[in-house]
Amino acid sequence: MRQEDPVATAAAAHRERDAMRRAVELAARGLGHTSPNPVVGCVVLDRTGRVVGEGWHKRAGGPHAEIHALAEAGDDARGGTAVVTLEPCNHTGRTGPCAEALLDAGISRVVYAVADPTPTAAGGAATLAAAGVDVAGGLLVEEAAAGNAAWLTAARLRRPHVHWKYAATLDGRTAAADGTSRWITSAASRADVHRLRAESDAVLVGSGTARADDPHLAVRGVPGATQPLRVVLDTAADAVTPGARVLDDTAPTVVFTAEDADARELEDAGVEVLRVPRAADGPGLDLAAVLDALYRRDVRSVLLEGGATLAAAFLSAGLLDRVTGYLAPVLLGAGPAALADAGIGTIGDARRLTLIETVRLGPDLRITAVPHTTEEP
Amino acid sequence: MRQEDPVATAAAAHRERDAMRRAVELAARGLGHTSPNPVVGCVVLDRTGRVVGEGWHKRAGGPHAEIHALAEAGDDARGGTAVVTLEPCNHTGRTGPCAEALLDAGISRVVYAVADPTPTAAGGAATLAAAGVDVAGGLLVEEAAAGNAAWLTAARLRRPHVHWKYAATLDGRTAAADGTSRWITSAASRADVHRLRAESDAVLVGSGTARADDPHLAVRGVPGATQPLRVVLDTAADAVTPGARVLDDTAPTVVFTAEDADARELEDAGVEVLRVPRAADGPGLDLAAVLDALYRRDVRSVLLEGGATLAAAFLSAGLLDRVTGYLAPVLLGAGPAALADAGIGTIGDARRLTLIETVRLGPDLRITAVPHTTEEP
Repeated sequence: MRQEDPVATAAAAHRERDAMRRAVELAARGLGHTSPNPVVGCVVLDRTGRVVGEGWHKRAGGPHAEIHALAEAGDDARGGTAVVTLEPCNHTGRTGPCAEALLDAGISRVVYAVADPTPTAAGGAATLAAAGVDVAGGLLVEEAAAGNAAWLTAARLRRPHVHWKYAATLDGRTAAADGTSRWITSAASRADVHRLRAESDAVLVGSGTARADDPHLAVRGVPGATQPLRVVLDTAADAVTPGARVLDDTAPTVVFTAEDADARELEDAGVEVLRVPRAADGPGLDLAAVLDALYRRDVRSVLLEGGATLAAAFLSAGLLDRVTGYLAPVLLGAGPAALADAGIGTIGDARRLTLIETVRLGPDLRITAVPHTTEEP
Repeated sequence: MRQEDPVATAAAAHRERDAMRRAVELAARGLGHTSPNPVVGCVVLDRTGRVVGEGWHKRAGGPHAEIHALAEAGDDARGGTAVVTLEPCNHTGRTGPCAEALLDAGISRVVYAVADPTPTAAGGAATLAAAGVDVAGGLLVEEAAAGNAAWLTAARLRRPHVHWKYAATLDGRTAAADGTSRWITSAASRADVHRLRAESDAVLVGSGTARADDPHLAVRGVPGATQPLRVVLDTAADAVTPGARVLDDTAPTVVFTAEDADARELEDAGVEVLRVPRAADGPGLDLAAVLDALYRRDVRSVLLEGGATLAAAFLSAGLLDRVTGYLAPVLLGAGPAALADAGIGTIGDARRLTLIETVRLGPDLRITAVPHTTEEP
């Protein structure tokens, strides 16, 4: 029931906005733990507008944000308002539908930010409205959507969100002429990469990086992190061998190979090998098939950690959704470039992005950009 | 005469600090017009601490900042304080010494920021103190020094300050694979380059750029700009030919060639040609000799506008004092790099810089860094 007194209405709107800001903060605590679900935050206000419950979705399979917030609110929820970053779900998955829980708790009004884009979960708003609840969507939608950018992109495109991360000098080199690269960027930048990994469902490298660096790809130094799936694209099944650091038991690992590759050595060692077709044009694997397989494994976000050839393949396939560059104030003048040939021959075909953030990290600069074409909601 | 009452002293210190901040602002108005002199700003306070005069050095050969400020203050300067960004000069150059003018005006106290590092002009503080004036140096010295960074570097090193400017994609390319580069950066970035040119005494390119781009190198779109000297390093005297845009009458131009080059065509066309030795190691000219010749022509700041080979030559000769990169959020994956081989083969030899500023310019990012080794005062 809406207050009709204009001053009271303005005060209520102000409280709801504050509550949504808080709900967005709460939602972010789930980042990296909720896949294939989104991150969601919820704040419950009683009928006088006082905060009586807070919650966020902590992990896939656990209660949704609304359930946590309603439990904290208890009877105070009756006649109150639920402020939630995503439209409450309408389906019974591993947990009951939130729309029903909100009705059971006697909530009178629901304010959400982002409409649920998934066919199975959508409809919560309609269900609530049909049951007589006052429902409003779109409050702080940009802030809430930014917090769920990867999940929303994945829901829209039906494939994981792909985030390319690179580290380079001011002149775009990722290593010196002799291949040495430890360290171009600072400890602060390298620690930040572990945060990116922790927020991702999967971390992916190509055979070049696997062969050259024997990378570990697990998260270090992020308390409570859920380890991402480690993924290596090893077309010919000749880059990853038993004993590779990426195969230790810190985190699960999947190796993708071509359908015709001989991966018996890996399989005999108990490594999970997934076979996909080769790319129709150019070397390597069919990246859409790789992403599809990952999506079916509930991976919603992939952090691409190199190298230049793999990034170029994703770029030229139109499969890059976000780019984060760690730029060190260093000049090399020689050495490999951050990005290899992606089939762009002339300036008119350059891939234009939009800079969305720049942050100083110790001596370095972190730059985040999204392509014009797949700009996030 | 200093006030001894602690409250009054604190108030006076506060006023002097405000006055110095204003003097730094005033000084900046002279940038690009005062060479071979520094930029200087001056604020005169009367004996009660009220601002009664302001001035800045507007152009070489014109009155110094102190003279302008004293003229505006008139009799109110008597018993007052002069707040000036640089130690008042002690020598009679094209204008009389400022120390004497301050004494004549009856100034009781002089507060300056940066000590004058030049042998001919220094000593003003001592002269004033000997005449009974209360003199203090070092107030807001960092801010004042930053405004005179190029001039101070030139005074210290006895050669022009060298500022390398480049424009590149996120992956460090300055053009696409086919050589096209119009435009990687935005109109906002390109306009900013004209501001950099206007603040420089000279703009310098190598023969590669002269040949490929036929650049004009003059300042456009900066009202009241003093056109910088245009400089082309054309070792073999075969890149710049009569009719080149850089030779028009918008601004003066100098072409440097090797001592053994045949530059008769240019000389016959009335072009000023300066001959210097070839570099002892590697192709091109002896860059120290080029800078020395420019310094003797009163050039205190040089803007290096490309290309990659020339920048690498300056870098490897240890002659880069500042780097400004215009980074466009664009990916190319192929094309020439911003910096060519500078003899750095391994990561331990990488040239490390300190990021001093990052600024968004339309869609682009401007990054400014100074080398660790020649960090500006």
